[in-house]
Amino acid sequence: MAKKFIKMIYADQVLWNQDGLVPAITQDALSGRVLVLAWMNREALETTVTEKRAVYWSRSRKKLWRKGEESGNILKLIELQLDCDGDAILLKVEAINGIACHTGRQSCFYKTLRGESWEVFEPVIKDPEDINP
Amino acid sequence: MAKKFIKMIYADQVLWNQDGLVPAITQDALSGRVLVLAWMNREALETTVTEKRAVYWSRSRKKLWRKGEESGNILKLIELQLDCDGDAILLKVEAINGIACHTGRQSCFYKTLRGESWEVFEPVIKDPEDINP
Repeated sequence: MAKKFIKMIYADQVLWNQDGLVPAITQDALSGRVLVLAWMNREALETTVTEKRAVYWSRSRKKLWRKGEESGNILKLIELQLDCDGDAILLKVEAINGIACHTGRQSCFYKTLRGESWEVFEPVIKDPEDINP
Repeated sequence: MAKKFIKMIYADQVLWNQDGLVPAITQDALSGRVLVLAWMNREALETTVTEKRAVYWSRSRKKLWRKGEESGNILKLIELQLDCDGDAILLKVEAINGIACHTGRQSCFYKTLRGESWEVFEPVIKDPEDINP
């Protein structure tokens, strides 16, 4: 009981939006590369802390999304940070298989603006047909 | 006219949310440190590209927010990336004065989870009374 109460303190300092969510930036703890932007509800945040791995809220599937639960591409939690306003979270992680994107790339950010259009600058590491998010 | 049309192509590939906004992660291009999570509308994105500096949409003030317009803490645009789903943007920037947070710190992410509570790990560099966001 006491533990549950204490746990609520950090989650209470997050400024959840009208849908009860907060954006969670996920960054490779070693390289600093930003891997994913996903969303968390309170349960996802508490599960991330408890299980020491990135657990998001899937807005499309409307359920907890334990990153890598099917693909094995788990993001192991190294550190968790909160911003000044409490409305954004930063996860520093270790990407177990080096792949965080469902397209089979290291990062979801693989398009860069060149002139007036987005250009893909990173090849697929693993065939996305073999990966589930 | 032609230029305006071409410019719209990259902005059209962004998946704007129901409020016409997209979350924009801002990262120091050199150190890799995540500095700010803010929001952009189409005008903010196009202005960021045109003016080569971070320009957000202030959801509280409901207007364009040229980061550093009063404080001088400008975030110079180095690179712009888009994620796989098109619903998150990553800005790599050079922080002109080394301060991106309105609290007078390098980054808005200055609290880390230690055990069950958030702990401030970064001191204020410049008195926030002297800074406007």
